[in-house]
Amino acid sequence: MRQSKLFTKTQKNPPQDALSASHKYLTQGGFIDMLMAGVYTYLPLGYRVLNKIADIIRAEMNSAGGQEMLMPTLQPKNIWEETGRWETLKEVMYQFQDRSGKETGLGATHEEVIYDLIRRNVSSYKDLPLSLYQIQNKFRNELRAKGGLMRGREFMMKDLYSFHLSQEDLDGYYNQMIEAYKKVYQRCGLEVKVVEASGGIFTKKYSHEFQVIAEAGEDNIIYCPKCDFGQNSEIAKLKAGDACPQDGESLKAGKSIEVGNIFQFGDKYAKDMNGYATTKDGQKQPILMASYGIGISRLAAALVEVHHDEKGIIWPKSVAPFAAHLISLNKNETADEVYEILIKKGADVLYDDRDISAGEKFADADLIGLPYRLVVSSKSGDKIEVKKRSSDKSELVGLNEVLKLLSE
Amino acid sequence: MRQSKLFTKTQKNPPQDALSASHKYLTQGGFIDMLMAGVYTYLPLGYRVLNKIADIIRAEMNSAGGQEMLMPTLQPKNIWEETGRWETLKEVMYQFQDRSGKETGLGATHEEVIYDLIRRNVSSYKDLPLSLYQIQNKFRNELRAKGGLMRGREFMMKDLYSFHLSQEDLDGYYNQMIEAYKKVYQRCGLEVKVVEASGGIFTKKYSHEFQVIAEAGEDNIIYCPKCDFGQNSEIAKLKAGDACPQDGESLKAGKSIEVGNIFQFGDKYAKDMNGYATTKDGQKQPILMASYGIGISRLAAALVEVHHDEKGIIWPKSVAPFAAHLISLNKNETADEVYEILIKKGADVLYDDRDISAGEKFADADLIGLPYRLVVSSKSGDKIEVKKRSSDKSELVGLNEVLKLLSE
Repeated sequence: MRQSKLFTKTQKNPPQDALSASHKYLTQGGFIDMLMAGVYTYLPLGYRVLNKIADIIRAEMNSAGGQEMLMPTLQPKNIWEETGRWETLKEVMYQFQDRSGKETGLGATHEEVIYDLIRRNVSSYKDLPLSLYQIQNKFRNELRAKGGLMRGREFMMKDLYSFHLSQEDLDGYYNQMIEAYKKVYQRCGLEVKVVEASGGIFTKKYSHEFQVIAEAGEDNIIYCPKCDFGQNSEIAKLKAGDACPQDGESLKAGKSIEVGNIFQFGDKYAKDMNGYATTKDGQKQPILMASYGIGISRLAAALVEVHHDEKGIIWPKSVAPFAAHLISLNKNETADEVYEILIKKGADVLYDDRDISAGEKFADADLIGLPYRLVVSSKSGDKIEVKKRSSDKSELVGLNEVLKLLSE
Repeated sequence: MRQSKLFTKTQKNPPQDALSASHKYLTQGGFIDMLMAGVYTYLPLGYRVLNKIADIIRAEMNSAGGQEMLMPTLQPKNIWEETGRWETLKEVMYQFQDRSGKETGLGATHEEVIYDLIRRNVSSYKDLPLSLYQIQNKFRNELRAKGGLMRGREFMMKDLYSFHLSQEDLDGYYNQMIEAYKKVYQRCGLEVKVVEASGGIFTKKYSHEFQVIAEAGEDNIIYCPKCDFGQNSEIAKLKAGDACPQDGESLKAGKSIEVGNIFQFGDKYAKDMNGYATTKDGQKQPILMASYGIGISRLAAALVEVHHDEKGIIWPKSVAPFAAHLISLNKNETADEVYEILIKKGADVLYDDRDISAGEKFADADLIGLPYRLVVSSKSGDKIEVKKRSSDKSELVGLNEVLKLLSE
């Protein structure tokens, strides 16, 4: 894409209230735009990042047998009354009356909707286990929405729900999903701690969080610096300095960002919403449920918190909005030709074709943070100057080598 | 995908209130599930159809220079007050107060949000023209929501907005989008009439609708049976029996389904929301806007209205949830092998591996409506019986020929 056409331009100054690197750089780089507190437009660059993350999640959820669908945002009060959550989630759920006076809520989460669907469609062991997910914006009536994508009123989430006829089957799938989650984060370029957690407002049952150690984090956890073990400090069985139960290393305490959480609801929903199925030998058994969430927009913010320097973002290849930033110096036609060839070969390139100074172009490239910077100038001859965003060294290479680099 | 794992199963009986073929077959076939009036879950099969339609739309919008992004559903009252639409759209827009008492609306359309974004980011002719779009669920507080996907409270839409500094530039792009729209419908397998329309509640300015002639339609139009000319009967310059202005054929009157509409707002938003940019010679000019919508979920319903018979849906290849329905008769291992080979070769196949009768499998295949039915049985030997959903004839062909058919 030609940067002269890209909506929007980068901004010189950070937002006034920016406290975190992600809020600052995602806004200045033209990834997001605030409409109101906690509510953002995902601009073309930002939407590309979210889609790359979403596609990684999709691939791993599909591998784990997940079927994608899309549930509604508008939800009737009655199903939420069955579990008592119309009251208990009152604080975070948008609730209002429609024109006909019917009490309606906006989807803050979808356990009630999906369990209602399950109880109407599942009657036998032959229909189970089931794993269903969606990717969609969720809504939470946050009093203190943070700037940026860390804690919003409207945010993008993947939520998967699994259904089982035995605790053993549920446990097996729950553990499989822990591994799928680790793969998602690893593919996105994030190191996570798998944290034993208390269930918070959603459940008191068995639960894990996936936490990224970062200064901008809101959570306090006890974690092992050398492996993926972590524990929510609210549980506080272990403390900083204790030995890690996985590898014996000395545990640390620190702030972290929650980028995923999974819950075992067991038979809570079966009891509350009357969801039963018959086993092979004709017995009626509760349909057990677990749910598995990943905050996609928050994950994008966490990536920036972990991958940035004083000049801007350093996107991991797998989630970068483009693979490379091609820059033409001194308005030359060679850059145009290189761009056309790269595009023809299917390379995913942002081309800074604007009539501005080299300094401004380099600053924008550092701010936006694509993995490779490619400079074509009168000095580079028939070669292209290639620099990784994460490195200071550049080298002159031929076009074929550039294509090879970008297809890696 | 193995049908034994697919969520959900087909249903024997249509919904009680089903008046249209699309409501009936999309529900019975397991494409959609009603949560409340006008609010549906898109089940795995249905979500696949919507994604195929969305991808066709994306390709055509990108070809026309559109940049995809995602705007919020939650919207503040203040921007809607600038255009007076907080009042005039009160009937169709969900409006409520958040926890802090702030007046909030749900996105019924996004002109105000995007124009606010534009006026803050566009200042010069260098930034224009611009074409931005999104694909997302919209919300309308319909008193009389219809069953099925024809008129919902929550529905999937593509909305594109274009911005220009001259009427000439806007006209050119508007005409380019009419051609892009025709391509979208043609690729989806729908014949549309391009209808001169009055603007309805959204605008009194120049506007076109894209209408599909169908019994289940809600609109009355005057149209040419032999070309794509149409006119909204509210305008009533022409009537049934008059000569078509395009080809002189005798016009007809009939009911139709609106599957897209486009509007020229001209300088309305520039005036209401103060959006101006400077021209090459330093003059301040209003930033003109046009908007272009396609109801994706309604388009899926329109497809079923046009493409069905008394047994079920007949999906056009381009939007079918799978390319073929593989059916095994009498639990045999050959079908399993064929399925594994097809999947390995990248074919997009639904495999009915269930232990039920041939009659039930054939009925389900007709109801779900995939373009090809492939039957493997002890009778077919090493051949596969192939039948188009749209035809009664079947023939025995080899596996390689099947692969060739499916990749067409």
